Amino acid sequence: MTSTPSVAVIGAGISGLTSLKMLEDYGIEAVCFEASDRIGGNWAFDNPNGSSSAYRSLHIDTSKHQLSFRDFPMPEEFPDFPHHTQIKQYLDDYADAFDLLGSIEFETRVVHAERLADGGWELTLERTGSAADEADGRHTRRFDLLVVGNGHHWDPRFADFPGEFTGETIHSHAYIDPWDPLHLMDKKILVVGIGNSAADIAVELSSKVMRNEVVLSTRSSAWIVPKYIAGKPADKYFATLPYIPYAWQRKVIQAMQPMSAGTPESYGLPKPNHKFFEAHPTQSVELPLRLGSGDVTAKGDIARLDGRTVHFADGSSGEFDVMIQATGYNTTFPFFDREFLSADAHNHIPLYKRMFPPGIDDLVLVGFAQSTPTLFPFVEAQARLVAAWAAGLYATPDIEEMRRVIVEDEKKYIGHMLDTPRHQQQVDYFLYEHDMRTAEIPRGLERARTRRATASARVTA
Amino acid sequence: MTSTPSVAVIGAGISGLTSLKMLEDYGIEAVCFEASDRIGGNWAFDNPNGSSSAYRSLHIDTSKHQLSFRDFPMPEEFPDFPHHTQIKQYLDDYADAFDLLGSIEFETRVVHAERLADGGWELTLERTGSAADEADGRHTRRFDLLVVGNGHHWDPRFADFPGEFTGETIHSHAYIDPWDPLHLMDKKILVVGIGNSAADIAVELSSKVMRNEVVLSTRSSAWIVPKYIAGKPADKYFATLPYIPYAWQRKVIQAMQPMSAGTPESYGLPKPNHKFFEAHPTQSVELPLRLGSGDVTAKGDIARLDGRTVHFADGSSGEFDVMIQATGYNTTFPFFDREFLSADAHNHIPLYKRMFPPGIDDLVLVGFAQSTPTLFPFVEAQARLVAAWAAGLYATPDIEEMRRVIVEDEKKYIGHMLDTPRHQQQVDYFLYEHDMRTAEIPRGLERARTRRATASARVTA
Repeated sequence: MTSTPSVAVIGAGISGLTSLKMLEDYGIEAVCFEASDRIGGNWAFDNPNGSSSAYRSLHIDTSKHQLSFRDFPMPEEFPDFPHHTQIKQYLDDYADAFDLLGSIEFETRVVHAERLADGGWELTLERTGSAADEADGRHTRRFDLLVVGNGHHWDPRFADFPGEFTGETIHSHAYIDPWDPLHLMDKKILVVGIGNSAADIAVELSSKVMRNEVVLSTRSSAWIVPKYIAGKPADKYFATLPYIPYAWQRKVIQAMQPMSAGTPESYGLPKPNHKFFEAHPTQSVELPLRLGSGDVTAKGDIARLDGRTVHFADGSSGEFDVMIQATGYNTTFPFFDREFLSADAHNHIPLYKRMFPPGIDDLVLVGFAQSTPTLFPFVEAQARLVAAWAAGLYATPDIEEMRRVIVEDEKKYIGHMLDTPRHQQQVDYFLYEHDMRTAEIPRGLERARTRRATASARVTA
Repeated sequence: MTSTPSVAVIGAGISGLTSLKMLEDYGIEAVCFEASDRIGGNWAFDNPNGSSSAYRSLHIDTSKHQLSFRDFPMPEEFPDFPHHTQIKQYLDDYADAFDLLGSIEFETRVVHAERLADGGWELTLERTGSAADEADGRHTRRFDLLVVGNGHHWDPRFADFPGEFTGETIHSHAYIDPWDPLHLMDKKILVVGIGNSAADIAVELSSKVMRNEVVLSTRSSAWIVPKYIAGKPADKYFATLPYIPYAWQRKVIQAMQPMSAGTPESYGLPKPNHKFFEAHPTQSVELPLRLGSGDVTAKGDIARLDGRTVHFADGSSGEFDVMIQATGYNTTFPFFDREFLSADAHNHIPLYKRMFPPGIDDLVLVGFAQSTPTLFPFVEAQARLVAAWAAGLYATPDIEEMRRVIVEDEKKYIGHMLDTPRHQQQVDYFLYEHDMRTAEIPRGLERARTRRATASARVTA
């Protein structure tokens, strides 16, 4: 690369948008390919690309104070916990403010990304939606670098239980509201899972006005955290401190949680198979209330299915009309050959700093984490590094070192957590951002300087 | 009265049922007249007598631990905050356990209660519902004593604003669910008031799946208390202590409230015109969340109405399709001549120990209080006294003393509270029960003993 590289970005969700913005800050030419006709990805409700899992009532689970991109605060007049329509508005305003729309090719799906023998990328593109009939239908383009921001909350993961359920089954990904895609009134409903979606959907459908019977089945149970403490968004009180050992902080939080929000058992949930903070907690004001009001009944794991009957591990059983699986997502890259790059069945992908696959030096992934408390400033921090890397100012270490650090970081971030697909990509934003800012970026800048000096010395010699 | 008196009880809600039970404990013959075909009053959802104000989703705002009658605990398997269907079941079980149904004449309305010149009562009765055509249609019966338990949450009180609203107006009393009696989806809705009904209805209709715009207007604002603290029903922590001055306890609670649940302003409610505990607090887990999520917008008082436009006191205005007035109830006694006994326009009725009208010694009212935390054990405590009084074991003091104590008690229970119709009957159950048990009942028993001794001395002489 003599001057600045050409960069392709896949996806115009929060990862793609922040990457574009940061790349343009460095004066690097980038083109973003978006299959939909609009930006926002998951936050574009009813997104024509079929990839949004936003339901009608979805509010972000993180307060706007934690959620805001660090270089684009949310408007004062936004409520503490914005609705998805407001998040979409915010992303539209972000794209406007940084003039990103001109760099996005809409209705253009990357159907294949092929790494060339001597580096660089050939992308096979297809026009979609209203652009499907355009003359340039399927074509290819070449780029020096590839930024992948296609998200990891769009390919539903179904739980596999013995037997067969003959009622209706949908994944939470498809759930919009009590009448779309299924008519969910006067029904017996089993919600599987206890993440935020499971909690929100169980709460929504168990409102007595819907006249449903709602049972929630969870294998691992969950610690429930409130959205408000003493009238302030609960996450305003929360930040992991980088200078105190992580394990000690967990111990303090584990001791305090029952005092602030009780134990899961106090609401009638199964006893969790983990301590607080050993799995992503579920944020819900209403689920404990619904459990405590008898509107939602909690059950443990499912043992087997038999027609309309679901047998639970505790020996009890129930008849259901509908099963809603809020059982998470697979991490998939439809544009890569599976053997080139893919997550394993357990959702695990080894990435240096959750971004760089070792051995492929012109590829970076953004947003492939389950970040606490939220993904927004996390992807922004990653995007900042993407731009420095694309500009040649940041370099990753050698492959051996990358592999060593991946193992070390995974031990740090997920060593104490449940070994489930959901937690393979768990990251604490506060620690991550601190590590990047104070250690990884200075080192990476130094590595890049050394590499440039060596190269120029070689040229001179 | 030579042997035991004959007693008529009006109403088979919680006041009538507990009174019947206690009267039967003393072996006193009592007949309860109930206009409906079932017991439960307000707790009989869709009660054919038209007097129930229970909406479909209604759960009791007090946990079962505080709610239970002291002589009939709620079943273990009940949730912390039972649904109205469970409260009804509990009352049915209570009536069965104490064999009360045989003493109730259903579908029989007391249309007039006339006090006879030399004491005792003549009741004019009418058969209603399926019994309306029976031969004994309208008839009269005489009783020695009258127990009034017709309730004070059935005659809707509307707020009177200047101007006219041309959208639909209903009172919360008529509200059943989002489709009954009005179709409340895709509507602009103004909820007036901030009691528990206002909070529940605003929460229910502001769920994003209903696609409404919901504004809540409140003149006085309210302190919101949670249903759970640290995983336990919040009211498990709460009891007023009789041995510490009431004003001191209020100060402690006033200081602690912002720490546990924040101030109303922190959620965007108007600043209240009163301190915590100077008005009945509103119990809602969800209203702060809905306010903080932008689903409900809070406004202050209404200045005037103009067609579909509502002008607020702060100068702002909005267009609405529907106004729901959750503005409380009038206390009325349709069977009494207004000049004989009635509440004033401010809902005030002077009653000794909130039971006995001075000067009428064969009449007692049960359940005419806004009791904190709940009415259930409160009416049970009153009913216990009703029976002792009917048995001649308890006597009220003379009229002058009754009037003095009424003023003293009102100063104690409502002197510090907002002077509104809602708070005229406010009572702290813990203090009330303690006062009755340790002071009033022993004194009343002594008064009755003295009176019997005097009477028998007179006979002997």
